[in-house]
Amino acid sequence: MRMVDIITKKRDGHELSPEEIHFFIDGYVKGTIPDYQASALTMAIFFRDMTDREIAELTRAMVNSGETVDLSGIKGVKVDKHSTGGVGDTTTLVLAPLVASVGVPVAKMTGRGLGFTGGTIDKLESIAGFHVELTPERFIELVNRDRIAVIGQSGELVPADKKLYALRDVSGSVESIPLIASSIMSKKIAAGADAIVLEVTTGAGAFMKNEKDAVRLAETMVRIGQHVGRKTAAVITDMSQPLGFAVGNALEVKEAIDTLKGNGPADLKELVLTLGSLMVLSAGKAESVEEARRLLKNALQNGQALAKFRQFIANQGGDPEVADHPEKLPQAKFRIELPAKSSGFLTAMAADEIGLAAMLLGAGRATKEDSVNFAAGIVLHKKVGDPVKEGEPLLTIHSDRADVEDVKSKLYQSIKIGSHLEKPRLIHQIITE
Amino acid sequence: MRMVDIITKKRDGHELSPEEIHFFIDGYVKGTIPDYQASALTMAIFFRDMTDREIAELTRAMVNSGETVDLSGIKGVKVDKHSTGGVGDTTTLVLAPLVASVGVPVAKMTGRGLGFTGGTIDKLESIAGFHVELTPERFIELVNRDRIAVIGQSGELVPADKKLYALRDVSGSVESIPLIASSIMSKKIAAGADAIVLEVTTGAGAFMKNEKDAVRLAETMVRIGQHVGRKTAAVITDMSQPLGFAVGNALEVKEAIDTLKGNGPADLKELVLTLGSLMVLSAGKAESVEEARRLLKNALQNGQALAKFRQFIANQGGDPEVADHPEKLPQAKFRIELPAKSSGFLTAMAADEIGLAAMLLGAGRATKEDSVNFAAGIVLHKKVGDPVKEGEPLLTIHSDRADVEDVKSKLYQSIKIGSHLEKPRLIHQIITE
Repeated sequence: MRMVDIITKKRDGHELSPEEIHFFIDGYVKGTIPDYQASALTMAIFFRDMTDREIAELTRAMVNSGETVDLSGIKGVKVDKHSTGGVGDTTTLVLAPLVASVGVPVAKMTGRGLGFTGGTIDKLESIAGFHVELTPERFIELVNRDRIAVIGQSGELVPADKKLYALRDVSGSVESIPLIASSIMSKKIAAGADAIVLEVTTGAGAFMKNEKDAVRLAETMVRIGQHVGRKTAAVITDMSQPLGFAVGNALEVKEAIDTLKGNGPADLKELVLTLGSLMVLSAGKAESVEEARRLLKNALQNGQALAKFRQFIANQGGDPEVADHPEKLPQAKFRIELPAKSSGFLTAMAADEIGLAAMLLGAGRATKEDSVNFAAGIVLHKKVGDPVKEGEPLLTIHSDRADVEDVKSKLYQSIKIGSHLEKPRLIHQIITE
Repeated sequence: MRMVDIITKKRDGHELSPEEIHFFIDGYVKGTIPDYQASALTMAIFFRDMTDREIAELTRAMVNSGETVDLSGIKGVKVDKHSTGGVGDTTTLVLAPLVASVGVPVAKMTGRGLGFTGGTIDKLESIAGFHVELTPERFIELVNRDRIAVIGQSGELVPADKKLYALRDVSGSVESIPLIASSIMSKKIAAGADAIVLEVTTGAGAFMKNEKDAVRLAETMVRIGQHVGRKTAAVITDMSQPLGFAVGNALEVKEAIDTLKGNGPADLKELVLTLGSLMVLSAGKAESVEEARRLLKNALQNGQALAKFRQFIANQGGDPEVADHPEKLPQAKFRIELPAKSSGFLTAMAADEIGLAAMLLGAGRATKEDSVNFAAGIVLHKKVGDPVKEGEPLLTIHSDRADVEDVKSKLYQSIKIGSHLEKPRLIHQIITE
């Protein structure tokens, strides 16, 4: 088998065989297939796409390229949730204790290397004492006992994805649906998920800029799930503006606590209930989505979800008191309001721009070596479609530095005030098998 | 400027700027742009094609990547001829002395490294004493005095092409019209041509398997010529079967001598007159193609062309006597006929298959290190469309080994006898500015 023949076969629009796909992934990870052949193939895939069979096989080959996590010691259907990313993603912080509180096992594995849930860990670490250094035995024990635990990742999951993603990033084939889909699914499968619930974001702040591509990506991942025997569902959501009000680490933890109390922003609550009921259904803890949703609403109302959050935090060394006293979370030195420059309706507040502004305040990392400022961030007061009056605060900047002119000017650039606009729909579509 | 942005720009169907194209070629030759980015770009070019402006700029950048030959010391318009290849290409052996005999300067530079005209040198070296080791001064002097000389190449012309071609060969982007066109044209321009006449072959034995692609390639090269100010014309020819009758080194020299005497195969003669008249016209030695053709026909009939051949061979140390005594050329030990297995019409004789059979006899090189057997080869007696009788010889194998069963079985596999078939047209189209 010669790699150049595999490249030209794909280039000319033919379906690659399972053997050819495994030959490529195995050889690329071993180093017998050079980068210049891999980048030519990924570019050909960008143009020619892949069949469901090819994508499922690519996913399998990627899973097989490294270690996999054995969660068989955990009783029940392990459901993992994944988001293709956005800004102000407080979802996991609410969702994990919420579904655990109705009996769905949440066994979350994260690592700096993967980066995907790195954001969630940073947020949890803003709670004093919280850590993810558990032995695998303790991790399994906690999930079996209390239905929830988070562990730092050891071992190398899906090295093929790591190598291939780095290559695509510098050779112009990031935006390929089959490659994105197999990348995401291979990591979830290697991490031990029996079932997968996906949030595919769309809009300016998201990886998929338009809905058509988001739907294609979601459908592709659901079909991969069918092919490899992992029940998969996907929700297409709007990420043209940040989710919820808070953008930052401690700020999002506080917002998550509010939501677990049954309060919190309406959009965040709706998303959590939608994703959560799909997870509860996949885990076999309800007969229908409607029943699942009722279970979750109850758990928010009767304090069950918040109690699970306290238990989870305490289990991992954190101070559970934050649930009742969120003021114990790190607080920024300065709170600076951003007044509206004119009256009208808020028409645009690009999620990625708001995210960048928060990063300027120290809330995020530009490189792996950067440290994160837990307290810094932004709290929105208005969202797209809301009426605003000149001089009224659009948002509050939480900052440890007094001079935030750079952040203000960035925010003014990205926030538009105009004539009346419908509030954007948060949940666009639900895609199941 | 970042290479990944150039790749995605081309990938998304936009036109690259001259600066971007030069950034790519310069960086690739210097090694600051890695192979994996170059292969991704060439694959994107395969899918997206290039505009005339991009292709002309790519050609210029490739020419600038290395040394160029200065032929300004030679009086007159230097016209170079190039063929995209085939089997039994005796054309150059006839064409060079023929056009020189009517006053067109033929200053041919060849080298092992380039490989393109390496075949012609091997053929000439089958004449005892012939060599291409001339000083540049002597080379110029000979062309100015006698209108013809061939020199071995020194210096590195178009290193970008060498590096890029090797990469495309292993990363699946050989068959890209803009890349093929710029590769060919950059080498001709770097070798000092003022005007270029191209033979673009099509059919089983050729690089371009179908006429549509051949025409596109030819038109692309003619337009490059317009853009860079080198008058260019192209002739689309049939290479579904070998040109002429002889396939081999000394065998083709003999056939060339026959043709220079006004005899020789009709197809070879027609091609030489077609290409030759375009060269004569480009060099300004005639007012019209018709006049150019008359000049060349006269030169073949009155012995002028053959005299030029003798002079050329003698100038470069060869024995000019071969012109009158072709039996002085290396002769194979065995001549073995291949009889027809049935009666009918010859319907197929794939040029590349016949070429491979000749290579099995030692007539060609599989690797650079192989030595060439000057005497070995094949002389056809029948061509496509000819009637054949069972038992009648289709061709004669010239071999230094007695057992040629492997060659015979290969030849029988590639030669088809069936019902009546029109003789294929040799010259399909002439493309000029």
